[in-house]
Formats: sequence, structure tokens, C-alpha cells
Amino acid sequence: MGIELITTTEGLRTRLAELSQAERLRSAGFVPTMGALHSGHAALARRAAEENDLALASIFVNPLQFGEAVDLERYPRTLDADLELLDAAGVRLAFAPSVEEMYPYGEPGVRVTAGPLAAKWEGASRPGHFDGALTVVAKLLHLAHAPVPVNRAYFGQKDAQQLTLVQQMVDDLNLDVQIVPVPIVRDADGLALSSRNRFLSEAERESALVLSRALRLLEERAAAHEPLDLDSAVALVQSAPGVELDYFEVVDPRTLEPLAENCEFTPFRGEGLAIVAAKVGPVRLIDNAVLSS
Amino acid sequence: MGIELITTTEGLRTRLAELSQAERLRSAGFVPTMGALHSGHAALARRAAEENDLALASIFVNPLQFGEAVDLERYPRTLDADLELLDAAGVRLAFAPSVEEMYPYGEPGVRVTAGPLAAKWEGASRPGHFDGALTVVAKLLHLAHAPVPVNRAYFGQKDAQQLTLVQQMVDDLNLDVQIVPVPIVRDADGLALSSRNRFLSEAERESALVLSRALRLLEERAAAHEPLDLDSAVALVQSAPGVELDYFEVVDPRTLEPLAENCEFTPFRGEGLAIVAAKVGPVRLIDNAVLSS
Repeated sequence: MGIELITTTEGLRTRLAELSQAERLRSAGFVPTMGALHSGHAALARRAAEENDLALASIFVNPLQFGEAVDLERYPRTLDADLELLDAAGVRLAFAPSVEEMYPYGEPGVRVTAGPLAAKWEGASRPGHFDGALTVVAKLLHLAHAPVPVNRAYFGQKDAQQLTLVQQMVDDLNLDVQIVPVPIVRDADGLALSSRNRFLSEAERESALVLSRALRLLEERAAAHEPLDLDSAVALVQSAPGVELDYFEVVDPRTLEPLAENCEFTPFRGEGLAIVAAKVGPVRLIDNAVLSS
Repeated sequence: MGIELITTTEGLRTRLAELSQAERLRSAGFVPTMGALHSGHAALARRAAEENDLALASIFVNPLQFGEAVDLERYPRTLDADLELLDAAGVRLAFAPSVEEMYPYGEPGVRVTAGPLAAKWEGASRPGHFDGALTVVAKLLHLAHAPVPVNRAYFGQKDAQQLTLVQQMVDDLNLDVQIVPVPIVRDADGLALSSRNRFLSEAERESALVLSRALRLLEERAAAHEPLDLDSAVALVQSAPGVELDYFEVVDPRTLEPLAENCEFTPFRGEGLAIVAAKVGPVRLIDNAVLSS
């Protein structure tokens, strides 16, 4: 395995400076992850490796973005497998710091706050989550910033609200990095890949498929310039046993505000983002689809 | 005048990249200011020019850190004189963006929050001030970050709490910049330089001198390993006509927590920061002194 494991912030800075200078790198592509990697992460890593002279990834389960300690504890940790996956995708540096390395002074006093956009959707049921997520993403983007002309960072479209907020952070705080969104990777049956899927029973997994089916329904209607008929999509999700719907909306991709109700009754035109969240058995799942017409 | 004026964020990025590459710069020194420059700023600029291959400065009056619109409006603006001062000090690039250039989407949704340290002292009478200040400092540090091995940024010790918070932001968010504190510059009579001093009448200015006199008293006692006798220093400040004391404390330079009361009664050892704020006529003045023994 050629991948190099780095565990200290100082080590990462030093190595990025060395490589940038020695190899006259023109670009670096960074993939921040929480580990427990699957093919969705592999897609991010491959894009980063293909589009840049150097690809690097981080593996860090950030305590700051977990509301409950139990969630944090049961979050899967699979470092060896993660390194193999990243290596195979062409990533050269893996940054996997300890909590003490990332937060040497304990909980940070200075933080990033995500603002109004973070109160909606996922934020509504996870207060403080996006503040914690943006704070660690800011830290990681600073640490992974190579002294090269172009820095890029790769985020999955799966966490649509996180992606929107990260792009807003980059714009609002003038971070010197290009955010590259990467489409959702799905299993053959349509289920969006997630490190949480492993907690689904076979029956729960079958039920969970209504999420992607309902989204596909909307995609097809949008592509055909038909009214979206969100009600039918919601009814489909609610028909599945053991699925407890949290929200299902079509929103503006930038503001995350619901689009005017009449997109349900008049032919769909323009750009929208269908977002859904539901509890299936013990697991909260999210999924989304970009609608364009 | 050799100094180059840049008004757009894109222009600054481009120019920093060009210069860094063309001249193989090893370091850049950045001086963020709100304009209305005086000899205190000149000291920052000279340090930046002396210690780095490239010195740059910004001039931006940040609406986000002003509580009241009237303060913002009456803040002095003296661009031509500012550019001359910076040029004479050896600064090559001056970044002076408009409010619209810095906040193209209006008030930013994503911000930096300064945390508990910002509620004390200056923060107590200016709620939100340090959140606004750190947000714009983060933006400016990102924009002024040159693709060179070492980036430094220069801050005056005069705004001691701001300096402490900026250093905390750099630590907590892993910004890739060295913060360099520069000692307070004083007029011959001892008054710490400030762009607000111009609003003092002659009599008010005479009264304001008690601030630096009281601080010097503490410095001398600390250097002599004597008890600090803060009460006498406070009494001195309160004896001056027209001086309305807000706070006068000796604090830990890192946490800004008051040192144990017994530093007033037992010989002073170690490091402390004496901080004082008072209203003198129409102007709120702050001053401080590093105590060491």
C-alpha cells in the first residue's frame, strides 16, 4: 500500500509543503470523511485523485457534531479497511488525527456558526450539529490547504444540506478552496450508500427503498415537465411498514426554502432539490434528488 | 508612490499568486486595519515589511463589528493619507475593498463566534463586537493568505482582547498563519495612539493621561516584585476630571480572567496583563500594559 498515514496537524502541514515544493504540484484535492468508508466515499476519492496532482483524505469522527454520546460511541471505526479503500482510489495522504490532536485545548472557544440555514431540515432535529460540522470542516480545510495554486475539496451530494452550508461557509468566509459536489452513489436496488445502512435488518432495508423510489418518481415528473405531485410521493413513503417520515420537501437548492406549492400542481420548470428524511427501524436515513427541467 | 491599490477579492488572490511565483517569495506579512492610520499602524507595517519578503495591508471599516450605525458613520476615512503611510513603511499591496465586495450576499449567514472570552471586558459593553471582528479577520486572513511557505499577520497589543481572541481563533480553527503582536506606540506624553484620540479636547486629553500613568505605576511595582496595589491605580484614574472608569483589572494574558486578588497584597511574580477602559469626554479609550516579574 502506497498511502501514507499522518496523525498530527504539524506532520500534515510539513508533508504538504514538502510534496508541493518537491513535485511542483499545481493542485490538491481533499476528501474529508468520518471513516467507515464505502463506495460513495471511493467515488469522492477517485474524483480527487483524477482531477488533482495530489489527493488527500481525512478520517476523523468529530465529537463536536454529535448530539448524543451514544451516537458518537457507536459510530463505526474501520481504519485499516478505510486506508485500503483510499489507497486503491489513488489517495496518497491519509490524515487520521486523535480527538486530542484536533482539540488540544478541549472544546474550542472560537467556532464557526452555520446561521439560519442550519435551523431547518436536518438541523431541526439535531441542534448544534451543523455548527459542529462546519467548525471541523473549517479546521480540516485549513489543515489540508496545500501551498499550491488550486485547492479543491470533495463533498457528497448525499448530505445535501451540509454541502450547501459548506459552500456558504466558503463564500461567506472567503476560504481559498473550490468545493466539488459529487453525485450520490446507490446500491443496485436504489438505496443511497451510507455507513448507517449496516444497522438495517433485511426487512427494514426493503422498507427503506421507498425513499429512493419516491425521489425517482419526482425526478421523472420534473424531467417530463409535469406537476410534481409531492402528495403521492409522500404517500408512497408512508405506505412502507416501519418507515417514520420526518420531512419530504422540494426546496430551492441554494436557500433550502420550500419551492412555491404550485410546483405540485403546475408543470415543473427550473431547478429544485427533493429532500427526504425518515426513521427506518433504528436508523435515521436521508436521501435527495436534484430535479431539473 | 510604489504601493499598489487593490479593491477586489479576486484581484488580491491573483496578484498574490503572481508575485509569489514570479519572485519565489518565502514569506508574506499582513497588516489588517480599519484605516485612519497613525504611527501605531506604521509600526505594524514596518515590522511586516522588515520580517517578510512581501508586506500587504488591508483598509476596511467592517460594519459587522459596529453596534451602532452612528459609530460606523463617524469612523474616520482617510484613504490617501493611509496609502502614503503604508507606502513609506514598505507595504507593497493595499487591499481596500468596498462593503459590497466583502459582503456580496449581505449580512453573512455563516460566521465566526468568539465564545466565552468575548463576553468579558470590551465585549461586555459591545455585544456581538468580537463575533463581527473575528468574522472579518477570518475573511481577511483567508484573502491575504499568500501561496508561500510562511504567512504572518501583525496585530497591535493595544487591542489586547482582540489580539488574544485572534490568537485563539488561529489555534481553535487551525489557520495557517503566525500572529505577531506588536507593542503599543505612545505619544511623548504617554497616551496610547488611537484613531479616536482626535475626538478629545485639550482638557480631555490631559485627563486621559491618567490611564497610562496608572498602568506605568503597576508596571513599576511588578518589575520591583512589589504588591500591585490596584486600588491606588484605580484612585489615580478616578481623580482625573471627566474620566468615567469602566474597568481596571490585572488579568491572565491568555484567559483574560482576573488574577487572584492577592497579587495586590503580595509581591508580584509571573506574567499579567493590566487592562483599563474609560470614557473620557465623548470617547471610550482603552489601554493596557504587560506586567512581568
